This record gives sequence, structure tokens and C-alpha cells, in this order.
Amino acid sequence: MSDILDLDAAAPRDTQEAPDTGAFRRIEAAAPRVAIVGATGAVGEALLDCLAARRFPIGELRLLASPRSAGRTLPFRGKEVAVEALTERSFEGVDLALFSAGSGISKRYAAAAVQAGAVVVDNSSAFRMDPDVPLVVPEVNARAIEAHRGIIANPNCVAAIATVALAPLHRAHPIRRLTMATYQAASGAGAAAMEELRQSTAAYLRGEAFEPKVLPHPYAFNLFSHNAEMDPESGYNGEELKVVAETRRILDVPELPVSITCIRVPVLRAHAMALSVEFDAPVAVEEARALLEGAPGLRLVDDRARNHFPMPSEASGADDVLVGRLRRDLGDPSGRTLALFVAGDQLLKGAALNAVQIAERLLRR
Amino acid sequence: MSDILDLDAAAPRDTQEAPDTGAFRRIEAAAPRVAIVGATGAVGEALLDCLAARRFPIGELRLLASPRSAGRTLPFRGKEVAVEALTERSFEGVDLALFSAGSGISKRYAAAAVQAGAVVVDNSSAFRMDPDVPLVVPEVNARAIEAHRGIIANPNCVAAIATVALAPLHRAHPIRRLTMATYQAASGAGAAAMEELRQSTAAYLRGEAFEPKVLPHPYAFNLFSHNAEMDPESGYNGEELKVVAETRRILDVPELPVSITCIRVPVLRAHAMALSVEFDAPVAVEEARALLEGAPGLRLVDDRARNHFPMPSEASGADDVLVGRLRRDLGDPSGRTLALFVAGDQLLKGAALNAVQIAERLLRR
Repeated sequence: MSDILDLDAAAPRDTQEAPDTGAFRRIEAAAPRVAIVGATGAVGEALLDCLAARRFPIGELRLLASPRSAGRTLPFRGKEVAVEALTERSFEGVDLALFSAGSGISKRYAAAAVQAGAVVVDNSSAFRMDPDVPLVVPEVNARAIEAHRGIIANPNCVAAIATVALAPLHRAHPIRRLTMATYQAASGAGAAAMEELRQSTAAYLRGEAFEPKVLPHPYAFNLFSHNAEMDPESGYNGEELKVVAETRRILDVPELPVSITCIRVPVLRAHAMALSVEFDAPVAVEEARALLEGAPGLRLVDDRARNHFPMPSEASGADDVLVGRLRRDLGDPSGRTLALFVAGDQLLKGAALNAVQIAERLLRR
Repeated sequence: MSDILDLDAAAPRDTQEAPDTGAFRRIEAAAPRVAIVGATGAVGEALLDCLAARRFPIGELRLLASPRSAGRTLPFRGKEVAVEALTERSFEGVDLALFSAGSGISKRYAAAAVQAGAVVVDNSSAFRMDPDVPLVVPEVNARAIEAHRGIIANPNCVAAIATVALAPLHRAHPIRRLTMATYQAASGAGAAAMEELRQSTAAYLRGEAFEPKVLPHPYAFNLFSHNAEMDPESGYNGEELKVVAETRRILDVPELPVSITCIRVPVLRAHAMALSVEFDAPVAVEEARALLEGAPGLRLVDDRARNHFPMPSEASGADDVLVGRLRRDLGDPSGRTLALFVAGDQLLKGAALNAVQIAERLLRR
């Protein structure tokens, strides 16, 4: 495939440009050879959509998945591309490898990809807290990419979506405490969980029983504490601990106190979250609104008169993170805390889009 | 109807007994005549269920609704009871009037009921902040009933469910700040909203368009900021302002700072909420667990090993409020804040059950 196009028009709102110092390892090829690991998953599919929609220049596309998916084909830019079984030798000649097949696969195969000369953008949690691996949301900390040594980590979906909304405020007024309650979609647990939500809901409406297979609890018209493994000591699940650690790292506030509750709600593919943000001094709502309004990757949806605020139905399929319900937090009489509500597509900014945006920064323009 | 039974067995967990001082106006009749205003609504139906399930002694049952529902019948204890059109004269001879037809109806007709000699338990917001009207959750402030002058207010559903969970903690360690993010079911917007959730979801699954009629936004696999009227100045909606004011009043902490975000989620009839509770001093998780475990109206669902915590699917149809995910709040390094997750049936503890529990306190035993 050779569908090389100017990228300038494709990423108009990513204004936090990393300066091209020439000091870090870019992808030299004008038409890089791209491998997608986990191509048949929900994020894999979204990666293909993003690469196509953003006209990412691709010299060759290699779709990699488990042996049981090998032989399938997936459509890309009007052609069918065969899926190959992932092996250590899958990365020969690859310039860019986008991993999205879980941390076990990333830990096992990312080194082989780097060894073969590829730059890896890894959507799993495998390397996110590795100090040698940048953890990047381009709108927030694009410059961190420059320090990469072959692997760049794509954050947890909640951390990515939240930090896009928090960064413009944090740059103007340092955040000193954060409270988050999430409303997380099925897609975060994969395509099979999305299908389980559809099927179990259809069964419920027909009055039929449904035994959950993918998620641990009934999902039809129900919600539950996030299904990530629970740390029995602290009482926090793995999702919550990831969001806290990654949010601190992306915003570069290592000790930021974060209250967090992660809940899985019966929504298909966009996460939402209620945030309370305490700053080091009082911040006026109007100033915060102005900071959010012009920020990259964000769309302000904050119409009090029409009761119109961020919703998963409007965030789904949108590149921008929606932010609104901006108001003074009644729980902090000092006036230092603002409340807001955020929604973002879990498969796009929460995963595939952010990975492709990172990859775009690696291209020599 | 005369189905008079000993009530002692019916309310075994309501241990916060108001002492029978004889100084307040009880219902004298052994088999009171009971009127239900708004009998055909979602809460009206739940009131009938609760009265039957709890064997409330009823000498005569009068079902009142709008003229367009007059002539219908509703089943109660195996008989069909005719629905009558509500008028000022509907309360002649009535001892107990349970209002659940919105605050406009309560404001217009409650005085007539009191005039006719009835005690009113009002499920609307009409009188909740009236200092002459007790606002009561029996497990929390049963004694407040004694001061009634004919009307007792039943709280907002979120306030009722939250305060059942908070009161045992607050009695031992005063709460000084509260953060709430809610996950509210369709039932809070009435039976028509529950039906809209079912119908719009079925349409979504069939791939068909659906125009919302009851709620302002698409509800299938979606969530949105609570549909109560927004205060354009503060940016808080009426639901949030009610929850804050009523929680303060029920817990008797008039200035309690409360952070709140109320969200409507695609769940049918149980509300859930993520709470962060700051106390005046550090509280050990184990002590809080012990306080919640023995408390009236609560069931602790807090199994970290099985990732089993409060869920709407298990709260629906249950009298008890479910409480769990009890843990130290990472957002407050001082150790004074605990986090927990709560779920309660919106139609039961959030409305009908609490009203019937109040009515039980009015009976001369």
C-alpha cells in the first residue's frame, strides 16, 4: 500500500508541538512499514480506522494476531489485508509497531520489535510506569516522546481522557488534589464485552435469563465496580491504581492525591467521569472555561440553558474529548475547587487515536 | 378491607425507635383509612406493594389519581380497588394520606388532607425544607417525626439512600465533608421514563431510530447530567441542590460542604453512588466496617476477593440499602476520608418503603 499524504491537515488541533530537535529517534521512512499487534480486537479495529481517517502514510501494513485469527482478512482503505500469526520474526523490516493485545503480549514481543528496528507504541500497561518509557498524551506532554528508546507507552483510557481535560487548567493553575468517579463503557473490556452488553440486554428485554461469560456480573441495565483485579490490601482495583499512577505521571505531579472510584456502566464505547479539581488557589469558573475552550483535543459542551453537557452518545466516534458542567465545587468553601464532567471515546482518545497521534509525532515530516 | 396484623415482625431492622412519649399526633385508628395520591405512578405502585408486604393495617384504602386514571382498578391484597379522581373532598374520613404525585399536587391538596384529619406523608419536594415539616429517614432521625403538625416529608431518593449509609458513621465520627457522584436509575423520572429506557434500548438493538419523549436525551446505552431544572447561576441542577439541602437536614449538619454530581444512567430502578466521606479525625476502615455491618436498613456487600460490591441488579427489589467498597480514600493523605459505594432501590428506600416506614411510626401500637 502506498497512500502517502501530507499530515499537516490531518491533526489540526494537536498544537502542543514537540520541537524537531533531531535528537530523538524518528521513523525515517517516508512510507513506513506498520505492524498492528492485536489487529482483530476492538482497539485493533479502531487503529485501522484512525490510520485510514488520518491518512497516515503506510508503505506496508502487517496485521498480527493470535494463530486462531490467522488467515482472516480485515479491510483497510478498500483492500482486504490478511491477518498473520504473531511470532518473534513478525517485525522484520517494520518501522512502526502498534501493540494492542494485552500486557502479556507486549512484554513478550515488544523487545523483538525494537530489536528489528521498529519503534513500538504500546497500548498495554506493560511499560507505562517504566521510567525509560515515555507515557504520552500528545496534547499534554508531547515532548516526553523525545526521550524514547524504542518504546512509547499509550496510557490507560481514563488517564488519557482525563488528562486532556485537566492539562489546560493545570498549566495555568497547578492541581493539588483530584477526585474522580468514572462511568466506563464496555469497550474497555474488549469487543467481547461490548457484544455481551448487547446480547444480555436483548435477553433481558425478552425476559430471558443470560449467563455472563466475559464480565463477572450481569451487565443489562446494571453497573458494577470495575472488573480489574482487586488489590485486597488497599481495596483498590487495578484500573483505579493505573489511573492514579498514570495521571500523576502524565501531568508530572508525582504525589498528586487522587480519590478514585471506577465503575463499569452499560454504555458501549465512551467513558465519562465526574471530576473535582482542587487548585493551589481559587480559580474563577469563567477563566477555567476560557482555558478549556481553546485547548487542543477538547470540545466544550456546557450549555446550562439547554441542559446539554458531555454524554457518551455524543463522545462516541468523536476525536475530541467533551468537557462541561464546569462549576464551582460546593464541597470546598475555599473556592479552590472546580467540578466538571468529561466524556471521551474509549476506543479513540482512550486508545487508538492517542496511539496514532503519538505515531504521527515520530514521522519525519 | 381489614387485614390488621401485628407490625412488630414487619420492621425488624428499624432499631432507632422513637420513644412513645404520647406527645405527638399518632394515628389513633387500629385500622386506619389510607389514601394514596398518585396511585397509578411508579411510586404509587411501590407504595401498594410495600403496604401489602409489610402487612400495614388498613381499614379502608382510597386510591386517588388524575381524572384520566379514574375508573381504572389496581390490585391490592388480591382484590381490585377502583381509582378515584383526586378532589379536595377526597380526604373525608382519611387517617393517613400518602402523597406521591409531584410537588404541585402536594402543595394544592396536602392542606385539605390535614384539614380533614389525616396525617400526610409527602413524597414530593413541596415541604421538605419547611422548618415546620419533619424530613425523615426512620433509621437516621426517627425522632423528628414527633414534631409533625400534620405533614411529614419523605426525602429525595438519593438523600434517603445516602443517609442510611452515612448515619452509622456520622453518629460515631462527625462528618465534615462529603463528595457524591450518583448513578441514577430511570425510575426517579417515573414509570414513563422506565418504559422509554426499555423501548429506546430495544430500538437501538434493532438498529432503529428512537425520538426521546420523556427524557431530554437519548437513553439507550447512554448517560447524561440529571434532567432536573438547572440553576443557571450556580450550574447545579435541582436534583443536586435537593440532595445537598436534604442530606444536611437529615444528618443535622446545616453547613456540611457537599460536592455533588447527579447523573442519569441506563438502569431501571436502583440508584448507586460513589461517596467520599471526610470525618473530623482519622477513622480506621475496620471500625467503619463494624459500624455499617450492624446498622439498620443496611446490608454490607464488600467482598474484595470476589470483586462483589453493591450493584443495582442486587439492590432492585431489596428493602436494604447495599453498602461496600469501603476503603481509605487515596485523595486525602490525612487518613480522615473514607470511600464507599452504595446502591439502593429508588422506588423502595428511595421513595415508597421510606414513606411506609414513616407511616408505621405513626401507628399506635
